[in-house]
Amino acid sequence: MNNADPTACVLVIGDEILSGRTQDANVAFFGQQLAAMGIRLKECRIIPDVPQVIVDTLNAVRQTHTYVFTTGGIGPTHDDITTDCVAAAFGRKVVRHPAVEKALTAYYGDRTNDARLRMANVPDGPDVALIENHISVAPGYRIENVFVMAGVPSVARAMFEAVAPHLQKGAPVYSQSVDAHVREGDIAAALERIQNAHPGVSVGSYPFMRHDKLGTSIVARGTDKAAIASAIQQVGAVMRALGEEPVFGPTPT
Amino acid sequence: MNNADPTACVLVIGDEILSGRTQDANVAFFGQQLAAMGIRLKECRIIPDVPQVIVDTLNAVRQTHTYVFTTGGIGPTHDDITTDCVAAAFGRKVVRHPAVEKALTAYYGDRTNDARLRMANVPDGPDVALIENHISVAPGYRIENVFVMAGVPSVARAMFEAVAPHLQKGAPVYSQSVDAHVREGDIAAALERIQNAHPGVSVGSYPFMRHDKLGTSIVARGTDKAAIASAIQQVGAVMRALGEEPVFGPTPT
Repeated sequence: MNNADPTACVLVIGDEILSGRTQDANVAFFGQQLAAMGIRLKECRIIPDVPQVIVDTLNAVRQTHTYVFTTGGIGPTHDDITTDCVAAAFGRKVVRHPAVEKALTAYYGDRTNDARLRMANVPDGPDVALIENHISVAPGYRIENVFVMAGVPSVARAMFEAVAPHLQKGAPVYSQSVDAHVREGDIAAALERIQNAHPGVSVGSYPFMRHDKLGTSIVARGTDKAAIASAIQQVGAVMRALGEEPVFGPTPT
Repeated sequence: MNNADPTACVLVIGDEILSGRTQDANVAFFGQQLAAMGIRLKECRIIPDVPQVIVDTLNAVRQTHTYVFTTGGIGPTHDDITTDCVAAAFGRKVVRHPAVEKALTAYYGDRTNDARLRMANVPDGPDVALIENHISVAPGYRIENVFVMAGVPSVARAMFEAVAPHLQKGAPVYSQSVDAHVREGDIAAALERIQNAHPGVSVGSYPFMRHDKLGTSIVARGTDKAAIASAIQQVGAVMRALGEEPVFGPTPT
């Protein structure tokens, strides 16, 4: 893969994920979307609603990745502290964005209140750009290489779709899979040979249980569609030689 | 909360989580189990199958948390590199554990092979303790404060249950919730007052959509059951005053 390919980190902010109350549903979505755009999701961190932890973590990961996407903590309640922390991480003041304040006031009418207007808060600076979306009147925003987004999956997705066209793309990562009711241990040696013969492809092996029968799903990932197809065909042949019919996933397109 | 309460970090190792192919299902389980034991899950990191990243991350988090739980990468295939990385992080050799080798050989019989025997590899040292479990013949292991576990959720859970009795416990974290079809922004000011009146309780606010209607779930968490109940009762009263009947979750026990 090209060293110039952009990389990303997802920062999931929220006690509710770490307490197990809420199952994260954003990382898998971001991972899929970023891979298709050739942006490598290199790391994800799930951190609690603790200001110093948020500030320190953000300052660490924004130095080492092309893009950072945060989710969570931008609503109207007292536990929504992400914007204060992002501003602190960048050494900026928090200001109220006039256009967002106006939009929130128009939307909420006589139910407008201080709490809701907190959703118009953004870090100060002419470079801070709103992330509008079609689900929520409260936007996210971009500051330098950091995209601050909602935690609610439908809103996070809408915000991601709004920013995607503006991201630097890399060589797209393709993948293909092949599954069979063979056990990992019975194909491991052959898999390693196939991996070594396809150095530009990453061959992953994932056991599964279906209809009470163990099986293995092999996934080849990389930027070279022909090499992926070659690796997967060879894995399929190994599965067939063991007497199990391989089921191929869609050809990478 | 007590500063002496033990803390934990979960390290999810696997390209398949970052690519979005596989939805992580271990973090929420660990979070719930640890909270009940009074061990604070402070952080989770999802990292790729890259040896130096695994080594460096493990060496960072094992210094800062009482316990580290890793998931993934201990199977028989070439992409299972966790044990090599854990050994490298601790500056130890990888050795084959005789008892595990014997158990694997007994289990697999004439299907025993080099790949499967890799699952008997552990870092060297008299302190390395196996984590037996009732699902998989291949164990995890403990080395110092690090617990190396499988990624497959059923196996990860069985391994966690095996180690749980041996962990240092802290003050258990309790929680109670109350839900109503009120909007976060309409109760935010009252919530903040209730939070401030209950400094030992963490009050979180989570919007939801049910039957096409927006609502808010409030969760109070902490070690003091009476304070949690007080906070939740006050939130319920606020919801009722807005004309929506609150639905209380189970009393913390």
